[in-house]
Amino acid sequence: MAAARQVRIPNPESHIVADSITALAFDAYGTLFDVFSVTSLCEQMFPGHGAALAMMWRAKQLQYTLLRSMMDRYKDFWQITHDGLVYAAHALRLDLDAYNRTRLMDAYTTLAAFPDVKPGLQQLKAMGLSLAVLSNGEPRMLESAARSAGITHLLDVVISVDEVKVFKPSPRVYELAATHLKTPQSSIGFVTSNNWDAQGAASADLTTFWIQRTATEPAEELGYPAAHVVRLLTDLPALVRRT
Amino acid sequence: MAAARQVRIPNPESHIVADSITALAFDAYGTLFDVFSVTSLCEQMFPGHGAALAMMWRAKQLQYTLLRSMMDRYKDFWQITHDGLVYAAHALRLDLDAYNRTRLMDAYTTLAAFPDVKPGLQQLKAMGLSLAVLSNGEPRMLESAARSAGITHLLDVVISVDEVKVFKPSPRVYELAATHLKTPQSSIGFVTSNNWDAQGAASADLTTFWIQRTATEPAEELGYPAAHVVRLLTDLPALVRRT
Repeated sequence: MAAARQVRIPNPESHIVADSITALAFDAYGTLFDVFSVTSLCEQMFPGHGAALAMMWRAKQLQYTLLRSMMDRYKDFWQITHDGLVYAAHALRLDLDAYNRTRLMDAYTTLAAFPDVKPGLQQLKAMGLSLAVLSNGEPRMLESAARSAGITHLLDVVISVDEVKVFKPSPRVYELAATHLKTPQSSIGFVTSNNWDAQGAASADLTTFWIQRTATEPAEELGYPAAHVVRLLTDLPALVRRT
Repeated sequence: MAAARQVRIPNPESHIVADSITALAFDAYGTLFDVFSVTSLCEQMFPGHGAALAMMWRAKQLQYTLLRSMMDRYKDFWQITHDGLVYAAHALRLDLDAYNRTRLMDAYTTLAAFPDVKPGLQQLKAMGLSLAVLSNGEPRMLESAARSAGITHLLDVVISVDEVKVFKPSPRVYELAATHLKTPQSSIGFVTSNNWDAQGAASADLTTFWIQRTATEPAEELGYPAAHVVRLLTDLPALVRRT
């Protein structure tokens, strides 16, 4: 297992080694759950505009979590997802009626897991690690998506920002992992496909794993590079030494 | 002047009337200062990619102000503008060397004002209103841009978020206007071309004027609609009754 620690460590200046990790917290949307089915439904409703709608919806969803956190005007992720969809449809001049809006929102509750997720979680679980979801999502959305993806039994806890009424990348969110997992912050690894999320967690002193399933985007210029970059969840067991 | 109060009030439920306004605070970039020259320089350096570079640069600049504020990792707007440019060039695979990066950064210090800005500020000043800039910008960037645009003498004060080390739309930023203008929050109007900025100010109890020079974007779905929508700065004097 020692050899595995020499691979895929993109930041040679990092002194963090992943050998004291006893728990892993995972981001949800885009990391565990594939939101492709949402894009696909957008395209089915608005042929030729589905990708643009899905992309703007996602961008607004993220932007509204940040803006509302900054304004001290928290609304849960279900409401924010709804608001982002309404904006995106307006901006693209797409006629989205209540029926289709509901169908798109419901798509968020029945997502599939990426193919590497279940085998990855199973291997990590077998190694004795505690596993959690740590997400911007509203609690019922997360439970529903985890059930739909068939991974509920592999998770020790599903943690939502709703508890602290502020979104990522506030350090208050990442601190929830230690509280719920009853594990010191230094022994928790955080796994996400969103580079800004990895940098937020790194800034809050978690050991970070950036999942890049398709290596298309550069790292953000935020000063807190991810400690490790991996392609799939199934790359994690070799990196996280059993304690 | 009373008749003017009946026009351009987009939110009929708003009980805010702009008749007690004694001071106005203006957003800077995109509101007073036209950043078109930056886009133009981008296009000159990277023909066919200038608009994409400028758009992504601007988006990252905004996103980094929000992410760094949330992470409690403030860097000033000059640094964030630099970091956003570096990211945008990487993401678009454009070879931006140090010389051209400096040229693009310098463009931010020598912006022109929109054509309606100087006449608008002159009329408002003649009405006896106190006028301020309230911006994410770093203080020297703002001073330089105001000088370059020839509006320094029309401004009572240039207020930068640098004082509170957090960016818009934190309420701590909008509260700076009352402190510096020595005017109660309820008598301050806030003017911006960014709808999210208007909603942030409205959430912090300022009377907001959303400038839409080109009416292409819908209002954000954030719950704090601007009290007034105007097309140009020269539309403001008719709305703001002299006290």
